[in-house]
Amino acid sequence: MFSDRFDQLVQALRILPSVGPKSAQRMALHLIMKNREGAIGLAHALNEATTYIHECSVCHSLTENEICDICLSHERDDQILCVVESPADVMAIEQSGSFRGKYHVLGGHLSPLDGIGPEEIGIPYLVQRLNEGKVAEVILATNATVEGQATAHYLVEATKHLPVQMTRIAQGVPQGGELEYVDSHTLSQAVHNRMRMK
Amino acid sequence: MFSDRFDQLVQALRILPSVGPKSAQRMALHLIMKNREGAIGLAHALNEATTYIHECSVCHSLTENEICDICLSHERDDQILCVVESPADVMAIEQSGSFRGKYHVLGGHLSPLDGIGPEEIGIPYLVQRLNEGKVAEVILATNATVEGQATAHYLVEATKHLPVQMTRIAQGVPQGGELEYVDSHTLSQAVHNRMRMK
Repeated sequence: MFSDRFDQLVQALRILPSVGPKSAQRMALHLIMKNREGAIGLAHALNEATTYIHECSVCHSLTENEICDICLSHERDDQILCVVESPADVMAIEQSGSFRGKYHVLGGHLSPLDGIGPEEIGIPYLVQRLNEGKVAEVILATNATVEGQATAHYLVEATKHLPVQMTRIAQGVPQGGELEYVDSHTLSQAVHNRMRMK
Repeated sequence: MFSDRFDQLVQALRILPSVGPKSAQRMALHLIMKNREGAIGLAHALNEATTYIHECSVCHSLTENEICDICLSHERDDQILCVVESPADVMAIEQSGSFRGKYHVLGGHLSPLDGIGPEEIGIPYLVQRLNEGKVAEVILATNATVEGQATAHYLVEATKHLPVQMTRIAQGVPQGGELEYVDSHTLSQAVHNRMRMK
């Protein structure tokens, strides 16, 4: 429609998550008709981000420097390490404001059928980090999916020989969750992991 | 989060229609983590589109040339002119495959309270186009909103002196519409504009 470059823009926008052909068209029209300055700014931001953002050499989260701000921070507890699957999870936990330790990003989960074993998600490197002896507790914050659970269990096994406490984030009914809408697996977990109040 | 350039990318993505802070974060992470090549391609497509796409000098739709393909086409009927509010409407009608004439894009609708009068949406230029005498029928395809209707009515008045037939796209129950879910205004229009079947 309109011109080749317009169609190319629509196609390029479709790489964005949950953007289908209709949304991509709407976005392209919006940018061209109503916000060219914004479109140029977006192009610049994309080029800058892809050029300068890379993995932190310590925790494998994202940074523009050799080592990320969280790893460098002296205000965060070196003794607690939170293990997550991806930088998105670091972001989610940071935004919850519930954690003041450091992170370790695996970059995925174990998935033998896809050929993703312990090496592929850098478990030997994590074990090596724990071997340095600074960390007293590892919080396993992999996803509550089958693969995330399996990865957490594997990590417990792989660190058996180390004097490090391993904990798993709690699973149960989410805040504001109404029991009748919570799936039965979650509910059975919540009953099983019930906490004493008195 | 992560770095300044990451935050700038999230901000830049928020100019896209219906992208809130959460979606923008998800998009930025997806681009940086999973599709850097796509991100670079998107930046290129944005730069190309904003540089080369502009209004057609005849119909005011979008093109990369002086005059758009539809205006130049000899296969399309010069005698029927479809008047729409925006290039998005040209796209919608083209995709419906229901029209083989030419277009005229107003670039908006009358909105006196916002200071948008006939000059601002180029009605004198449209009247001039009709004055050339080529066009036999104008299909008024402005939106079925209050402003779109007012603009259509204004155009009928403004072209009273010209020997041009003015028609309005039909309004009624949309295809697949179930009457109980159709709003009462649309339903009353549909009853009022009923068509004889026998």
